[in-house]
Amino acid sequence: MDPAALRDAVRALFESSGVPDGDAALVADALVASELRGVTTHGVANLGPRYLEWVRNGFANPSPKWHVTRGSTSVMNVDGDRGLGVVVAAQVMTAAIERAGDSGICMATIHNSRHLGMAAYHAMLALDHGMIGVCTTTVRPSMVPTWGREPRLGTNPIAVAVPTGRRPAFVFDAAMTTVASNKIRLASQAGEPVAPGLLVDNDGHALRDAVVPREPFWMTPLGGTPEGASHKGYGLAAAVDILSAVLSQASFGARFERGVAAHNLIAVDVEAFQPLDAFRSAMDEFVDMLTSTPPARGHHEVLVAGLREHRATEENLRLGIALPAECHTWLERSAAEAGLPALDLLRPRRA
Amino acid sequence: MDPAALRDAVRALFESSGVPDGDAALVADALVASELRGVTTHGVANLGPRYLEWVRNGFANPSPKWHVTRGSTSVMNVDGDRGLGVVVAAQVMTAAIERAGDSGICMATIHNSRHLGMAAYHAMLALDHGMIGVCTTTVRPSMVPTWGREPRLGTNPIAVAVPTGRRPAFVFDAAMTTVASNKIRLASQAGEPVAPGLLVDNDGHALRDAVVPREPFWMTPLGGTPEGASHKGYGLAAAVDILSAVLSQASFGARFERGVAAHNLIAVDVEAFQPLDAFRSAMDEFVDMLTSTPPARGHHEVLVAGLREHRATEENLRLGIALPAECHTWLERSAAEAGLPALDLLRPRRA
Repeated sequence: MDPAALRDAVRALFESSGVPDGDAALVADALVASELRGVTTHGVANLGPRYLEWVRNGFANPSPKWHVTRGSTSVMNVDGDRGLGVVVAAQVMTAAIERAGDSGICMATIHNSRHLGMAAYHAMLALDHGMIGVCTTTVRPSMVPTWGREPRLGTNPIAVAVPTGRRPAFVFDAAMTTVASNKIRLASQAGEPVAPGLLVDNDGHALRDAVVPREPFWMTPLGGTPEGASHKGYGLAAAVDILSAVLSQASFGARFERGVAAHNLIAVDVEAFQPLDAFRSAMDEFVDMLTSTPPARGHHEVLVAGLREHRATEENLRLGIALPAECHTWLERSAAEAGLPALDLLRPRRA
Repeated sequence: MDPAALRDAVRALFESSGVPDGDAALVADALVASELRGVTTHGVANLGPRYLEWVRNGFANPSPKWHVTRGSTSVMNVDGDRGLGVVVAAQVMTAAIERAGDSGICMATIHNSRHLGMAAYHAMLALDHGMIGVCTTTVRPSMVPTWGREPRLGTNPIAVAVPTGRRPAFVFDAAMTTVASNKIRLASQAGEPVAPGLLVDNDGHALRDAVVPREPFWMTPLGGTPEGASHKGYGLAAAVDILSAVLSQASFGARFERGVAAHNLIAVDVEAFQPLDAFRSAMDEFVDMLTSTPPARGHHEVLVAGLREHRATEENLRLGIALPAECHTWLERSAAEAGLPALDLLRPRRA
């Protein structure tokens, strides 16, 4: 379906549930951006129903008044006032970008928040300002520390967005587990096996064979096994928890309160380091340097972070977003419940 | 041998080669700190001879006058004036810590520098100031991008040091390859095999069997194989190159000039986010939360970043540092060449 129409529909739904207009527009933009980028785990279909339920049942504050509890010239610790993380993080990132314009960099932590959606969305807000954006967040525990047998940390993603010139922006966004938990969950629901090394057995060892996961499942840190340097994924996830949760005075690690997330956002103004045009050119050369790597036997190209998602966006803008049937049903039913007009625009544009 | 005596000996050697007193003390402190922490790949024996040769043959400027080429309240881009990275990075980190005391955070990039030794050393300088320290650096290319067959990025380590209260500081320091290149080099020299998944064959595929490496060897990004999510290690290494080299207007990735490194240093003042005492207590609880994880079958404890190195330091302070015989020879020969008095203190304290 048409991305703009989908954005309008999602926005209307959240507005009708007490989310102020500007905030609802942010929810819609973030969820549709994820669909456009092909990150369907963080799109309208997968997160829309959850977020709407949260604002309707009060688990998330529909109209949060977030505020700075402590700060300095280039630093803010923000109380998210129980708002949807996807809204609060985007607004705080915008404030951080403004401060970085003055001082060169701004780091903001957010506590008392909720799930922030696709981390890259918030990091990418920096791009239009010629800045580098970084976003990390805590997630409920599912990662088993190296040599441990119980989960202590979340997937704890790191996103880094960097402006370029003529090339697509460099956008890295990855969980510090070997794989994102939603991918395991989908395999579990579909009864499909997952590759060796991703999950942990009852003894705390990475499973060496492909298995069909059952919930709850525990995951290996990036690296997979101790021999594969899983202590590095474990350490990076711990650093994310420190910068997001401990630094903002939120609950951390295994003490994660259900649904209560903490975030860290950084905006870095390139112009404070060098002329932005020179940086954009250098980034184009950097991207070319990587994508021109001769491919391994059996492969036809080498990618760079963000390239696949850039291509997905271009295709989805051209062809429209293909949503699962249940998502159409949810949109129509929710609109009807809210007394909104029927959503004629929701016919799929794709066959 | 006695750490203080080793520090004095190394300092005298560098002073005699034209390195100013304070700078020589920094070289000695950083190299001995690496030995103490058990990070022998970055200690006196392995890096001392290389660094001394560089200042003697002029590849590194013995008395650099580094200066800020561009900056803002909380940001500096520094020209390292071809100095030893281990000196310039430590001094710039100290300057960044001072600025962070005013504004809450400071990020410094350094170009025109040399190898900075153990990245954790510079990050850890923040600890005594109640700050979080971050250090990244470029390294000569040895990492093959996911689906590629030629190296394009270095091992590109990330170090993060975080102050605690009664617990040892959290200190993460890891290459974004599966393993540090010096470990592979030592195996190559000893004719010993390395584990599967660490090296790349001529087709660009991770070697699935243990092999004895031959130089030059190319390495997999953290994650090992595409199925193990090596694109994450690849993306993190690229982010390190961007923040260290592209942002400081240095040569990057495959354009790395032999021995010319670029760095990124960040100091984050905890007190700007929350009372430092509260943070220290929370970090103690965070560390305990991780180390109290029930161990996997066959293991007796779960570690946290920096714990192993903390224990090594305590042991080496008690027993003295065990240096290889060649290092004693090098110290004595170099001292003689420089007309320094014989180093009586260099008798090993260990059996």
